[in-house]
Amino acid sequence: MAFTMSLDGFIAGPNVSKAYPLGEGGQHLHEWLFKGSAEEPDASMGREMFDRGGATVLGKRTYDVGLPHWNDTPYPTPSFVLTHEGREPQAMKSASFVFVNDGIESAVTQAREAAGDKDVILMGASVSKQALKAGLVDEIFIQLSPLLLGGGTRLFDDLDVHRIRLDCTRAVASPYVTHLRYSVTNRRLTAA
Amino acid sequence: MAFTMSLDGFIAGPNVSKAYPLGEGGQHLHEWLFKGSAEEPDASMGREMFDRGGATVLGKRTYDVGLPHWNDTPYPTPSFVLTHEGREPQAMKSASFVFVNDGIESAVTQAREAAGDKDVILMGASVSKQALKAGLVDEIFIQLSPLLLGGGTRLFDDLDVHRIRLDCTRAVASPYVTHLRYSVTNRRLTAA
Repeated sequence: MAFTMSLDGFIAGPNVSKAYPLGEGGQHLHEWLFKGSAEEPDASMGREMFDRGGATVLGKRTYDVGLPHWNDTPYPTPSFVLTHEGREPQAMKSASFVFVNDGIESAVTQAREAAGDKDVILMGASVSKQALKAGLVDEIFIQLSPLLLGGGTRLFDDLDVHRIRLDCTRAVASPYVTHLRYSVTNRRLTAA
Repeated sequence: MAFTMSLDGFIAGPNVSKAYPLGEGGQHLHEWLFKGSAEEPDASMGREMFDRGGATVLGKRTYDVGLPHWNDTPYPTPSFVLTHEGREPQAMKSASFVFVNDGIESAVTQAREAAGDKDVILMGASVSKQALKAGLVDEIFIQLSPLLLGGGTRLFDDLDVHRIRLDCTRAVASPYVTHLRYSVTNRRLTAA
């Protein structure tokens, strides 16, 4: 999982649409990619996911709403779209898309094979939550943006998981964003 | 504002009660205060709020549910409880409590006077949100805990604010928690 998230937990602003694929105000989340792109640590953190990614799993919503804006994907890797619809494989500028109808485990398994020794990247909140619930997530990269958006798409919502403990393996600050990296240990915590 | 918050945005687990004042699993949020208490940076960060605090504003829920567990408050300062009920001033082990019936601005003003040249600390999610909406918050201290609680009391929920930009003025990691400090600039962001 790799997301830029506001301090109040949103990865997109309110009213996501084709005109505003990141919701109203959501584009401010990603300023670190542009303002900080020539400076460390933002520059190397921005490159990291692109260098590590070998395949991508995304949802139909991201595919239909997020990508047409650029007619492309930010991750130029073999991409697997989780959907209930039957569709034909399709190509964009820099990646080919395969549609997967039989669930998150199948999508991740297919992506795992395509990625070789690189990582599988999860795009979209819904797909990421499904993978987290299924115990398929190894690492969570969060770029924590110094914003309160007040509404929008929450990354961690309706998780319906038992308590999960993470290990924070990196915390690096820039003027634009705080780069956090967590390993998912999946160790359940006791309630009391 | 000063809170320990899970990565998924909760400052208490589900089912807060007098038996579980931090909700189920919520006590894991504060492990950094105990496990890290002898080590830097947790030790100095833990002392910081106690040293800086000159008065506290809290809500009736925190007063009725959070404090009886210890028969005390974590902040031994003059404390102002925001409530619609008429009550008499009251003393606990290490602080005196005054009940304020005429809104958040009045409570913060009274606390401001009592605090002298020290800070006013906001306790409780509801009081903090009211203060944030009223433009009364100068700084937000977050101890970001490497947990996904999956449910409970959200710190930033129903904020109903326009977008607020913060300046991250500190990000310090320990093995137990990431210490973040933000200034509230209250600068509104544009939607598009």
